[in-house]
Amino acid sequence: MASSEPNAALARGRREAWWKIRLFRGMANDVRRRAPFYLSDWVDAWDYRVVPATIYMYFANILPALAFSLDMFTKTHMQYGVNEVLLASVLGAVVFSVLACQPLVIVGVTGPITVFNYTVYDIISPRGTNYLAFMCWISLWSLVFHWLLAVTNACNGLRYVTRFPCDIFGFYVAFIYLQKGIQVLSRLGDAEPFYLSIFIGLSVFVVAYICGEIGRGSLFKHPVRVFLKDYGTPLTVIFFTGFVHIGRMRNVSLEVLPTGIAFEPTDGTRSWLVRFWDISVGDVFLAIPFAVLLTILFYFDHNVSSLIAQGTEFPLRKPAGFHWDIFLLGLTTGVAGILGLPFPNGLIPQAPFHTESLCATELVKDSSDDGDDDDAAAAAAATGLPSAGGSGSGVDDEGGEFKGHPRNTVHARVTHVVEQRVSNLAQGLLTLGTMSGPLLVVIHLIPQAVLAGLFFVMGIQALEGNGITAKILFLVRDVSLTSRSHPLKNLPRGQWPIWGFVAVELVGFGATFAITQTVAAVGFPVFILLLIPVRAWLLPRFFLSQELAVLDGPTASPFTMESVGGNYGEPKEDPLGGGPDASQGRPGAGGLFGSGMATVVPCENPSAINLRSRSREDLAELGESSDGRGPVVIEMQPTAVSPARTGIHNRRGQAGSSGGGGMGRTH
Amino acid sequence: MASSEPNAALARGRREAWWKIRLFRGMANDVRRRAPFYLSDWVDAWDYRVVPATIYMYFANILPALAFSLDMFTKTHMQYGVNEVLLASVLGAVVFSVLACQPLVIVGVTGPITVFNYTVYDIISPRGTNYLAFMCWISLWSLVFHWLLAVTNACNGLRYVTRFPCDIFGFYVAFIYLQKGIQVLSRLGDAEPFYLSIFIGLSVFVVAYICGEIGRGSLFKHPVRVFLKDYGTPLTVIFFTGFVHIGRMRNVSLEVLPTGIAFEPTDGTRSWLVRFWDISVGDVFLAIPFAVLLTILFYFDHNVSSLIAQGTEFPLRKPAGFHWDIFLLGLTTGVAGILGLPFPNGLIPQAPFHTESLCATELVKDSSDDGDDDDAAAAAAATGLPSAGGSGSGVDDEGGEFKGHPRNTVHARVTHVVEQRVSNLAQGLLTLGTMSGPLLVVIHLIPQAVLAGLFFVMGIQALEGNGITAKILFLVRDVSLTSRSHPLKNLPRGQWPIWGFVAVELVGFGATFAITQTVAAVGFPVFILLLIPVRAWLLPRFFLSQELAVLDGPTASPFTMESVGGNYGEPKEDPLGGGPDASQGRPGAGGLFGSGMATVVPCENPSAINLRSRSREDLAELGESSDGRGPVVIEMQPTAVSPARTGIHNRRGQAGSSGGGGMGRTH
Repeated sequence: MASSEPNAALARGRREAWWKIRLFRGMANDVRRRAPFYLSDWVDAWDYRVVPATIYMYFANILPALAFSLDMFTKTHMQYGVNEVLLASVLGAVVFSVLACQPLVIVGVTGPITVFNYTVYDIISPRGTNYLAFMCWISLWSLVFHWLLAVTNACNGLRYVTRFPCDIFGFYVAFIYLQKGIQVLSRLGDAEPFYLSIFIGLSVFVVAYICGEIGRGSLFKHPVRVFLKDYGTPLTVIFFTGFVHIGRMRNVSLEVLPTGIAFEPTDGTRSWLVRFWDISVGDVFLAIPFAVLLTILFYFDHNVSSLIAQGTEFPLRKPAGFHWDIFLLGLTTGVAGILGLPFPNGLIPQAPFHTESLCATELVKDSSDDGDDDDAAAAAAATGLPSAGGSGSGVDDEGGEFKGHPRNTVHARVTHVVEQRVSNLAQGLLTLGTMSGPLLVVIHLIPQAVLAGLFFVMGIQALEGNGITAKILFLVRDVSLTSRSHPLKNLPRGQWPIWGFVAVELVGFGATFAITQTVAAVGFPVFILLLIPVRAWLLPRFFLSQELAVLDGPTASPFTMESVGGNYGEPKEDPLGGGPDASQGRPGAGGLFGSGMATVVPCENPSAINLRSRSREDLAELGESSDGRGPVVIEMQPTAVSPARTGIHNRRGQAGSSGGGGMGRTH
Repeated sequence: MASSEPNAALARGRREAWWKIRLFRGMANDVRRRAPFYLSDWVDAWDYRVVPATIYMYFANILPALAFSLDMFTKTHMQYGVNEVLLASVLGAVVFSVLACQPLVIVGVTGPITVFNYTVYDIISPRGTNYLAFMCWISLWSLVFHWLLAVTNACNGLRYVTRFPCDIFGFYVAFIYLQKGIQVLSRLGDAEPFYLSIFIGLSVFVVAYICGEIGRGSLFKHPVRVFLKDYGTPLTVIFFTGFVHIGRMRNVSLEVLPTGIAFEPTDGTRSWLVRFWDISVGDVFLAIPFAVLLTILFYFDHNVSSLIAQGTEFPLRKPAGFHWDIFLLGLTTGVAGILGLPFPNGLIPQAPFHTESLCATELVKDSSDDGDDDDAAAAAAATGLPSAGGSGSGVDDEGGEFKGHPRNTVHARVTHVVEQRVSNLAQGLLTLGTMSGPLLVVIHLIPQAVLAGLFFVMGIQALEGNGITAKILFLVRDVSLTSRSHPLKNLPRGQWPIWGFVAVELVGFGATFAITQTVAAVGFPVFILLLIPVRAWLLPRFFLSQELAVLDGPTASPFTMESVGGNYGEPKEDPLGGGPDASQGRPGAGGLFGSGMATVVPCENPSAINLRSRSREDLAELGESSDGRGPVVIEMQPTAVSPARTGIHNRRGQAGSSGGGGMGRTH
């Protein structure tokens, strides 16, 4: 409560030394900024978009939750099951939808936390320790650490979280998904059920994937496409759950998802309240290092989920609040521990999907070709380097994404996001209803093979949207078939920096993934955390600032980052020598984990891309950006991009004019 | 031998009444035209392209042959097996490579002939008749009928074979493939081998399909892409043949491809010479109706294969000769019958693949955007209807074909085709070598599931290239996402003619496919043949000529059609009111069975399409074209199209100037 006016506080903060931590300032400012919108968060829910968003999020949330529950059920010997996972989702949904500063963020059980849970189980249970009591103590210590982070404004560190660690984390999570899918299948023996399960798992993947592709393509009318994209995966799960009962498959008995009794813990012998006092004092303190690791994981994972759910592609009008939400996350972690639930935190990709599903759109006629060509020329000019030829003939399409939309005649423009708390709360209550007897019976019918297929879908979709994947695809692409104006093609030192950057990313991923295969798996959050200083202090020694500007980018816009004091390394002077354009920063909209590079990916239409580099007053408190190193911001104006994938229209003119200086038309 | 000069003969033929058949004239003219090139057909083979073409064709030919041999082995109770199918391929290759007027046409055992063979088996074997002797008599009668067709210049009827019956036939063949793949799998019981086989079959399909997609995309350097496209399928077969022996799959014994003794007939009790005298006289004459059906099938199938292998997308310089080749086909049919082999005929898609693999290319820099836009404007103008807007902003990409090549900076241009006889002969001799003991042992390792996957690959690839598929995709595409200048979008009566035309095509396909499921399957060639008069006389009553001009098109260019007296319905006056452009006719290059509509399909780049309608002196002898009804010719200049898929550069200026009159630039 240091200041009566947040902006004044921010301005004053810049003048202060970084080590003078003003306790509670972040949380207080978050609440101050958000409180005026609280009533509107409920009133604004009176909008049709809330209905499909709720139904969509229910399925998008519960299906992975079921897959994770199967994974934990097996690996923790029934300590966690479907009911625990569902109740954790309900807990997260209720607390965050009602109390959070960022109610759009969907909270639930993630892949990394399941890895954490069963690794702790592997370490602790041979000691004879009561597992759930130990987990409870982890949660209680973690609650303390979360609150310490919240009170000391530790989320200000988010300014260093660029796309680089996010991409590596996303890549890691994707491979965890794929591995889990294979593990589910490989547990099924070697007889008929095994091979039938492989067939079913692959079929679920292929069908759900094709539904997603159609949703992004140009086949069928817009409502059909949206329906397939939104409900393709649930319908695929339902279909294949029934499919295995036809023909000669009827005679094969498949392993199904184990479920318990309605509203009861999976381990029938305990009550919801964990007997956390039933543990030795030594084990209570042994829980501290685990709690530290958990806190690191949640600090990173939850905040990144929040950042991406409030990415620049969404025209949000209500302020973010990271400090307050990390405080809430400590609360839910503690409660979950006491109830013996896996700890919920921010979900990727569900959180950004939620924001996307709340986007209200309007149909807009495309501008004429002349205007489009102008933009393409601007795109070429924005790289700041002499174009290889006189032609602004376009920007590489990166392998056919949005392949159906090369030349739209109309497109959907996002006018606003229905920012409210009801859809998050409602999907949580639906999940609570799923814990009732009849629905548990239905869930019990789902073959494990279908859930394996679901893991494959999640893994491949996460890989597709990843910035590392995008860079690798660029590198293996035939160089004669990529556009001359592609930013990655105009680096002064050629392709080697890209190879180097991707190599660093893959080493980071490989180390994290490798440790997950050992009993030290519980330490993987440390690896993720280490990536942030690697990016901030190590990489600038080997890469030029303009290379890093193209290879990396900020995760969220200054509007969202206001809660944490702005972005890291916003350059005072544009390192690529762009014009006097001063529009707002726009990082990648290419995918959930897309890098800055990915911003130029999804647009097949050269007219759709509006690359602008611009200078902007540096908000960072630490003065790191004065060396001019740091991500350049690539603005994307996705006029022809499928709204199904990216959202999206950006906020124009929110922080400056959008006129491009010195961007002549080249043809 | 009616005339000493073919062109003079042709000119004279136009003045004669159609019923005055000049016997032997077609054959004689074919030989006269081709003979001067015979020596060069061997000398020209001194070219590197012949080596990869030979290896590629060997695999492209033998893998489907093995799949068909499995099918016939099962359904004719070992009368036909691997050795018979291989020897039939060898027979066709040797005879046609050495003697044919069209040595590029690959001849072997096709899907339709396997249907014919086992249907005859189902009809004849319950009567106690010696099956192979009966087949021999069919072949001998058919030899007579083929020679009658050749002598009476019956191939002149090919001018009526537009894309309409070809598309339906191709659609039919594709579904036969898919059905055969399912049949192979469904014969494998319901235990572990069954489900493992489904998994393997689907995996073969997916991996081979992805290899093909990469071959057409922009990932990897050009040589890698070409390698994957050419050898992806054989390598997939080899990989999965080994794959089933690793891990826990080792314990599952899979059904493999049955093979016999090297160079011996599969039925070990007989010699290669069929005891065709060992049959009742009644059965000899019963063979006549079957021989008629076989002749109809071959007349259509072989000639269509030849037409497509010499499509307009290939810049051929040596003349075609349909009459002579149908005479040769009678010969090989008779010989195959006497040896107890399935009868070989022209193979789709292998024949056009062969021509494609012999294309020599050079790298060309793209022209400037201005020129490209001109072409796009010409494309819009060529529809002859007022454009909906002032923008020539491009032509619909039809669902992402060639998705990796939207804006090339360089492209490969086909300079010429290495027209020679050696690659066809060599791949035939390689096939002969495969009948030796060691290689038969290798072939015996291939699981049936892998061959099922091969059927799926062939079926889906055939469907993808089909003109019916292209039209259906256009119809289900979101109308707001297709280009205003798409020819199908500018029909005066809207979309209904397209629905109607597709409905007629699907009814034709459905009737043919339905009869194949019955014991009357042997009659399916009649349905295919009936489609030709339906197109020529029935459809013009319901469709406007300009609709048919867009919905249908000729199969081959006038250069190829010179052997049969030119194309049907080449309009004297362009029905769409094009300019005085008199360039040569160019039908669809969109796929193996692509319709005229498909010509505009593969070009994502608006600059790549050069649509020109033009008037041309009518060569048809029958005067049918004077009513102005008939296919308009759509010229395609695929400057930016992947050479991997279409070939291809067309012959410019071979029959006139290529200047477009009245084609203003619209933006």
